[in-house]
Amino acid sequence: MDPPADTPPGTVASEEITPAELQLAARNHGMPLEALRHPITPLGLHYTLIHYDIPAVDPSAWRLELAGRFERSLSLSIDELRERPAVTLPVTIECAGNGRARLAPRPLSQPWLVEAVGTAEWTGTPLAPLLEEAGLLDDAVEILFTGLDRGVEGGVEQSYERSLSVPEACEPQVLLAYQMNGAPLPPQHGFPLRLVVPGWYGMTHVKWVCRIAALAEPFEGYQQAVGYRIYGPGGAPGAQVTRMLPRSLMAPPGIPDFLTRQRFLEPGPCLLAGRAWSGWAPIESVEVSTDGGLTWAPADLDEEVADTAWRGWSHEWDAREPGAYELCSRAVDAAGNRQPTAGAWNLKGYANNAVERIPVTVRSPEPG
Amino acid sequence: MDPPADTPPGTVASEEITPAELQLAARNHGMPLEALRHPITPLGLHYTLIHYDIPAVDPSAWRLELAGRFERSLSLSIDELRERPAVTLPVTIECAGNGRARLAPRPLSQPWLVEAVGTAEWTGTPLAPLLEEAGLLDDAVEILFTGLDRGVEGGVEQSYERSLSVPEACEPQVLLAYQMNGAPLPPQHGFPLRLVVPGWYGMTHVKWVCRIAALAEPFEGYQQAVGYRIYGPGGAPGAQVTRMLPRSLMAPPGIPDFLTRQRFLEPGPCLLAGRAWSGWAPIESVEVSTDGGLTWAPADLDEEVADTAWRGWSHEWDAREPGAYELCSRAVDAAGNRQPTAGAWNLKGYANNAVERIPVTVRSPEPG
Repeated sequence: MDPPADTPPGTVASEEITPAELQLAARNHGMPLEALRHPITPLGLHYTLIHYDIPAVDPSAWRLELAGRFERSLSLSIDELRERPAVTLPVTIECAGNGRARLAPRPLSQPWLVEAVGTAEWTGTPLAPLLEEAGLLDDAVEILFTGLDRGVEGGVEQSYERSLSVPEACEPQVLLAYQMNGAPLPPQHGFPLRLVVPGWYGMTHVKWVCRIAALAEPFEGYQQAVGYRIYGPGGAPGAQVTRMLPRSLMAPPGIPDFLTRQRFLEPGPCLLAGRAWSGWAPIESVEVSTDGGLTWAPADLDEEVADTAWRGWSHEWDAREPGAYELCSRAVDAAGNRQPTAGAWNLKGYANNAVERIPVTVRSPEPG
Repeated sequence: MDPPADTPPGTVASEEITPAELQLAARNHGMPLEALRHPITPLGLHYTLIHYDIPAVDPSAWRLELAGRFERSLSLSIDELRERPAVTLPVTIECAGNGRARLAPRPLSQPWLVEAVGTAEWTGTPLAPLLEEAGLLDDAVEILFTGLDRGVEGGVEQSYERSLSVPEACEPQVLLAYQMNGAPLPPQHGFPLRLVVPGWYGMTHVKWVCRIAALAEPFEGYQQAVGYRIYGPGGAPGAQVTRMLPRSLMAPPGIPDFLTRQRFLEPGPCLLAGRAWSGWAPIESVEVSTDGGLTWAPADLDEEVADTAWRGWSHEWDAREPGAYELCSRAVDAAGNRQPTAGAWNLKGYANNAVERIPVTVRSPEPG
C-alpha cells in the first residue's frame, strides 16, 4: 500500500532514530553485508532479533512438553530429542521487519535497514513424526509453539508464542533444531531447542521452545492476532505475515568510509556478487544495475545448494570509468514474485523487500 | 571535562540518532546485558566494533610478517604460530567508545549505550618470545600492528593499525590469539589472528593482524595520533586512550517491555548480579543502589577468576514494596579509580564509564 500522508500512531516522520529504537539496535544485530561471501553464515554474524530477554536455561532440567489435542502427552529431555532421527538443513531466515527503517513514516520498532538475514545449517529432528507419536487428534487445527522468553508487548504480558496450521507444521522440512552450524544452539539462537520452518520469516522460528500444544481452535494470541499482521494506516489488522518475499542483497564492493559507509573502488573490472532468496519459490533470476535502476543486466546464478537456502549470484562489472554509481540488485522467484523498487508501506513495517541501493565512487586512476 | 554549552563539529545536540549512526549500529553490536550471567561470553554475544569491512582471508595464503627494527625478518604461517607455546586467558575487552551515546552533545560515531563489552577465552602464543626470536633491536621504541581491514577515516585511506611501546608489547600476557572460546577466531573477531592486550580498551586488540613492525620512532598514524585521543571541545588532541576505566554493569532483573525495555518484577526477594572490571587494577569493591544513587550498599564479590577478566558480584535486594526504582552499581579498583555518577565529556566520546541506571517497576501483588 502507499505510505500515508500523515504520521499514524506508532510511527515517526523523522529519519532520525529515537532512543527507544536505539536500545533495540544496540541489542539486536544484522549481518554485515560483506558476510554475504559466506554460503553458511558464521556463528555470530547471523542476524538476531530477540523480543524480550535471552532466557537462562538449565539444559538438565529443561523438558519439551507436548500437550493439548493429542492422544497422549509427551515430555522429552534434550537427550531424548537428540536420539531421534536427525536432519541437517541449510536454511535462510530473514526478520519480517527487515527493511523497516527504510519506510517513511517509519514504524517504531527494531530499526532494521537491510541486514536482518542469515543462513545457518540447522540440525534437529523433524516435527511431524513427533506429532504422530503423540497421536495428533483429528480435531486439531493448529500447533502452538511456546518459548521460554517472557515479556510485555502492546500492554500484554506474554511468553513468546506462535502457531502453524496442522498442514504447515507437518511439512517434512519443519525441524526442532538443537544445533546451529554443527555446534549446540548459542543462547541467542534458542538454546536448547528452536523451531525451524524453511521459507518463513523469522517470527515463526520460535526460539527456546518448551511447549508444543495441539489446538482445536486457531490461536488468537498477541503475536498471531496483533503482531505480525499487515496493517493499513488506519490500524486494522490485515493479512498474517508468513513467507519471505524475494530479496537480493549485494556484498558491497570496494572499501568503506568508517562513519558514512560511503564506498570507494579502484577503476577496473569488479565482480559484483551477492545472494538472493524467496520463501515462495526458487529464485529464477537476479538482475544487477549500476545506474540506480535505470538499466539492468542479468546476473549469473550459482548452483542451488538447497531449496531452503539463498542462492549465490555474480555479475562482472566493467568499472573502468571514474565517477559515482548506484549499485542495485533484484530477484524474481519461480512463482512470479518480483522484488519491487519501492516496498509496500504498512503500519508495523513488515516485509519491505524494496531494492537496496549502494552508492559507490570509482576513483580516478593514480597519476603516473 | 564538562560538556560544552554549544555543539562542536562532529557532535549533535539531539538525543535522536542520525542515519549514519544507525548504519553503524546495524552492523556492530553490543552484548545484551542479560548475557552478564555468563562468566565467559558465548560466541556471538561478545561486542563487535569493526571500523571498515570484515576482510576475506584465505588462511592457507595468509602470513604474519615481522619487519623493521629486528635482526631478521620473519614470515609465519598460521600453522607455524599454532606450533608455538600456547596460552589461554579469559580477557575482558570493552570498546573505548562504550557509553558514547549517553554524552550530550553526542559525538557522531558508533552510538554505544553501555553494552560494548565481552569476556572471551583467547588462546594464542605470547608475543614477547616472538619479538625476541626476530631479534628486536635496541633502538626500537614501539611495535606496530597492522590489520588486513582497510578503509577511509577522517579523509585518510588506511589499513587499521595501532602501536604499543616496547615494554607494553613485551608484557607476558600480550597474546597473538587464533582461538576464541576454544574455536578458531570467527571472521568478525579477527580470523585468523588478532592481538590481545589484557586491560586495554578494544582499539588496541588489533584484529586480522598481518604485519608486526618494530619502529625506531613513535607511530604517528591516524588511529594513534588522531583517533583514540581525549579531545577537548576546541578540537586539540590530548592524552591517548589506553586502559579500561572501572565499570560495573548489572544483568537487568525482571522482564522487559519489547519496545521501551522498561522492566517489571514481582514483589519479593531479588538477587541483583553483574560484573565489574578495570584495566588499571583489580576490582576492590562494588556497590549497589536501588534508589538511583541516593544510598549505596556493598555487593558481595565472587572469587576472582583471573586478573585479566571481569569479576562477578551480587546483592540481595528486598524488593517487597511495589513501586518505581532505579537500580545502579558502581565499581572501585585497587588503584583508587572510582566509577563516576556522570562521565567526563570529550569530543570523540571515549571512556565514558558513568554509572548505568536501570529503571524497574516492582508490581503490586496479584489480588487473592
